[in-house]
Amino acid sequence: MTIGIIGSGNVGGTLGSRWAHLGHEVVFGSRKAAGSGMQKLAAEAGPTARVASLSEAAAAADTLLLSTPWAAAKSTVEGLGDLTGKVLIDALNPLLPDLSGLAVGTTSSAAEQVAGWARGARVVKAFNTVGYNIMANPVFRSELPVMFYCGDNDAAKQEVKPLIEELGFEAIDAGPLAQARVLEPFALLWISLAYTQGLGREIGFKLLRR
Amino acid sequence: MTIGIIGSGNVGGTLGSRWAHLGHEVVFGSRKAAGSGMQKLAAEAGPTARVASLSEAAAAADTLLLSTPWAAAKSTVEGLGDLTGKVLIDALNPLLPDLSGLAVGTTSSAAEQVAGWARGARVVKAFNTVGYNIMANPVFRSELPVMFYCGDNDAAKQEVKPLIEELGFEAIDAGPLAQARVLEPFALLWISLAYTQGLGREIGFKLLRR
Repeated sequence: MTIGIIGSGNVGGTLGSRWAHLGHEVVFGSRKAAGSGMQKLAAEAGPTARVASLSEAAAAADTLLLSTPWAAAKSTVEGLGDLTGKVLIDALNPLLPDLSGLAVGTTSSAAEQVAGWARGARVVKAFNTVGYNIMANPVFRSELPVMFYCGDNDAAKQEVKPLIEELGFEAIDAGPLAQARVLEPFALLWISLAYTQGLGREIGFKLLRR
Repeated sequence: MTIGIIGSGNVGGTLGSRWAHLGHEVVFGSRKAAGSGMQKLAAEAGPTARVASLSEAAAAADTLLLSTPWAAAKSTVEGLGDLTGKVLIDALNPLLPDLSGLAVGTTSSAAEQVAGWARGARVVKAFNTVGYNIMANPVFRSELPVMFYCGDNDAAKQEVKPLIEELGFEAIDAGPLAQARVLEPFALLWISLAYTQGLGREIGFKLLRR
């Protein structure tokens, strides 16, 4: 399989190098294909890797990895021309420049609306990211599932944290209340895996650290 | 601590019961407070649990759990009156009735836009939910981190899946391409945990099953 890397920065450079080491033909595409950094990347990735322009990388490969910055994505993709039959792996995220949110999609959350309705209350989002069956019994052998929470009031979060932990979860602070824009979609992930994707309801997530 | 359950269905009933068993005073609030199902729930939850109307539950407690259906949330919360000083744990999700999405927030994704730009390509979303350092080395002792992917073309997904697995991830199909509305916010969760919440970049997620 020949893989074309459309955007050879941190993500594209990393994945392309690993695939090359595993024996795939990899074409690192870049706006600055002739640059010494690109040549070094390809040399370190081994004999199955080479450097080309973005359009050459797209033409040479059956499978493309899209890993440009969001701001460059539209012009880059449209500049690749006809991609009929190619698999395009979209690895980018439409991040705002300050990483505070996404440029596409999430613009509000239930939690923020609730905070507007609940006069005087200090709102903390929690207990929305797994099914109630997991809240009833969060035991996965010896592994603690994670429960995320978020809110704008630190004292309120400190009150909620032990209510999470004493049920048997690892409580992880996900930040301010607007992070409900992240945690509420997470619930859809759990629901789709449980019901649509066939994994069933007895699933949770563990935070891995090293 | 007295905990008021605002909406004593699956989630509220489960959490209230567990907190009562742990010794907390729990007031199960319900529109139908006098119903036999509610009395049974409270009886099984033990001597520190009781049933009341929604407004009584709110008044009696310092900490409230909001676990109504989304359609009932606004009128319920506004009907609780002044909540000054109370901690309100928002556990609800603004689910559409068919669970196909959220009623608030996510209305598009980068992946769907990319699919509109990439003429002829079969787009698969992947490699966007952890940092590149984890893609370079996904080893957490013996535990496989998860990598989600989604797309509308099954053959394309079957081509991408081994590209994920051979790097050392558990590849989990999250459904159609519109699930990028879920996976792109997931990236914000990783970013905020790594950079803002102080967990650092050496984190991943494992899917727990039983």
